[in-house]
Amino acid sequence: MKQTDLNHYFDWAATSPSDEDILRMSLSDTLNAWGNPSSIHSAGKEARELLESARNKSASALGVPADKLYFTSGGTESDHIPLLSVLNRPQHGTVLLSAIEHPALREMGTELKKCGWNIVSIPSDSRGIITPQAVSDHLTEDTVLVCVMAVNNETGAIQPIYEIADMLVKAGIGRRRPKLHVDCVQAAGKIPLDLKHNGIDSAAFSAHKICGPRGIGLLYLADPIDPFLRGGGQENTIRSGTENVFGAIAFSKCLERYIISHENPEAEKRFFEQKKLTQQFLMHLADIHTCTIIPSSRLETQVSDLYSPWVVQAAFRNIPGQVMLRSLDAEGFFISTGSACSSHKQSRPVLEAMHINPDIRETAVRFSFGPHTTAEGMNQLTDKISEICVRFN
Amino acid sequence: MKQTDLNHYFDWAATSPSDEDILRMSLSDTLNAWGNPSSIHSAGKEARELLESARNKSASALGVPADKLYFTSGGTESDHIPLLSVLNRPQHGTVLLSAIEHPALREMGTELKKCGWNIVSIPSDSRGIITPQAVSDHLTEDTVLVCVMAVNNETGAIQPIYEIADMLVKAGIGRRRPKLHVDCVQAAGKIPLDLKHNGIDSAAFSAHKICGPRGIGLLYLADPIDPFLRGGGQENTIRSGTENVFGAIAFSKCLERYIISHENPEAEKRFFEQKKLTQQFLMHLADIHTCTIIPSSRLETQVSDLYSPWVVQAAFRNIPGQVMLRSLDAEGFFISTGSACSSHKQSRPVLEAMHINPDIRETAVRFSFGPHTTAEGMNQLTDKISEICVRFN
Repeated sequence: MKQTDLNHYFDWAATSPSDEDILRMSLSDTLNAWGNPSSIHSAGKEARELLESARNKSASALGVPADKLYFTSGGTESDHIPLLSVLNRPQHGTVLLSAIEHPALREMGTELKKCGWNIVSIPSDSRGIITPQAVSDHLTEDTVLVCVMAVNNETGAIQPIYEIADMLVKAGIGRRRPKLHVDCVQAAGKIPLDLKHNGIDSAAFSAHKICGPRGIGLLYLADPIDPFLRGGGQENTIRSGTENVFGAIAFSKCLERYIISHENPEAEKRFFEQKKLTQQFLMHLADIHTCTIIPSSRLETQVSDLYSPWVVQAAFRNIPGQVMLRSLDAEGFFISTGSACSSHKQSRPVLEAMHINPDIRETAVRFSFGPHTTAEGMNQLTDKISEICVRFN
Repeated sequence: MKQTDLNHYFDWAATSPSDEDILRMSLSDTLNAWGNPSSIHSAGKEARELLESARNKSASALGVPADKLYFTSGGTESDHIPLLSVLNRPQHGTVLLSAIEHPALREMGTELKKCGWNIVSIPSDSRGIITPQAVSDHLTEDTVLVCVMAVNNETGAIQPIYEIADMLVKAGIGRRRPKLHVDCVQAAGKIPLDLKHNGIDSAAFSAHKICGPRGIGLLYLADPIDPFLRGGGQENTIRSGTENVFGAIAFSKCLERYIISHENPEAEKRFFEQKKLTQQFLMHLADIHTCTIIPSSRLETQVSDLYSPWVVQAAFRNIPGQVMLRSLDAEGFFISTGSACSSHKQSRPVLEAMHINPDIRETAVRFSFGPHTTAEGMNQLTDKISEICVRFN
């Protein structure tokens, strides 16, 4: 794809273009220090130093201690590790998975059912939000793990993870508290995050959503866990397999560049800019009378802060999602229906969980934005959508 | 590490220096086609084409159909997928793991025990070889999977995987045949391989052992399996997680360059060269009277073909493995004790399985070679070892 097309790429939640300077520099670094970080000779130690510097940088960007971060092969594995660790418990119990989780958790949950675990879905409200009350309503005596993502990948709905953590901490007084895992794949570098908030036990991150390479992720663990997946025992036994030093370095540089915090004014400024751009985009969509923003309440200014400015879901009357996608694709605009991970399936479990009716679901598409998105590109997108809507109505 | 040190790097079984031209070229390719291969717009399709071309190249190098190859995050995951798939069976049964398997299988087997599976170790003979008879002796009615690696990572012992496959095919006549998984991480690009041999059901590969990047592996499946690890359903549901296109391209180019076959005369020539070099190396070691080659039978010319020429295990009287490693390291020579994956553990399960006595085990080290190894470097290594042996005896 030509670099110029970036202006018309609106599928950043699926993946992002890599930051060329970061990837090339990280590759050069690792071509010079290519030892196995687990080897105890000098070649290994050199590689180990690079790996640990990547961990330190990542920790500083994420605001957590370095020894609580573990490199993995990506978001899916970072989600699997805390979920699968329940298999090491002496007795089966209950895991609560929010109804809007990524397939990495939802589909893995289905497998855990076969192993005798009770997997319970926490319903979403019509806004696409998992309330602390909904979690609390489903807590059982034997609940050992609760999974609620930070930002939904299809609607952008920001989940009340801190309130859920507070509720679980309170509910856990005097007994073993259920752990809380937060999939932060669509949140890191997208909205401010406070991983140190009491009650957040683990969090998953993926590099390729923030301009890093594929094949590298991070897992934050407030306390060590007993992993189910085993092997050479790398990453303090949490993730076995020879360490991907190139990926780790590149990811750490992306975290430094994109994590939104007061210490990173550039990323913070870009975040506020995107809030304005997306608010304008929503207004333009609302002007198209055949368009339904999902959820429609998102247009109300007092709720706009409940959604990530980087993701918008909307439906267009009489235009199946795939048709809208292909029509835009033909004009050089790239969007998606649902997540890339389920692009070839017709079901829309997240929208179903929000009780969106089938007509709307089938005509829904996702627009997602990134650091290189421009106002100009977004305006050209709305113009193109308007044209297509006229053609089909 | 400086490129000049390559001549004194003898830890190729732990990892290999990346082929700079392949990695830089593969990175450039993917910087230009960075879409998510699962996205159905043009940016996704471009990336999908690159991924499939990598699969086709890999398939052609490995001599198998492309639709039987699945990209994974590395050797560990490629070992896990067939092993964990037993968890999808309606009833518990038996898995036979050879006593000399990599920790990716051995340690994962220990976890499966906790899930109710019967995990049985197939003993090695004193040569470090798992005989078809040993496998046959341990077969039970409920054995569903047998795992025997192609080349042991510590001794270089080549396992009779084809004979084991034949035996299992024969044993399976009239009933459900146990599947055979072969860890080929230390075999691909090291010895000729015939994956299409009847009865080999799955095989694991890792890129970084043959000058490719970390974080990418391949799994060969003769027939599709029901995976336990689930998520977005990429790689035909066998391996979920956004596809690592950069890794896949680089790996495929390394397979093209290093896989030993008649179609790749350069790699074949290098293989025969290494056989001679290693035979000379063994002779030089044998001249050191405090040295014990492991197993000692390896010196006999009629058994030399039972070992990969790329790996040698030997013990040196009065010199603990770690001391030999550090003494050589101080002189700029890099070797290892056991596998990098267990470098920080003191136990040597593979040598124990061979009934090597504790004195020898503690003084054993591994030398491993690669395409850039030279006769000159190997001679300098034996000279240095001789010096160290004199110092300690």
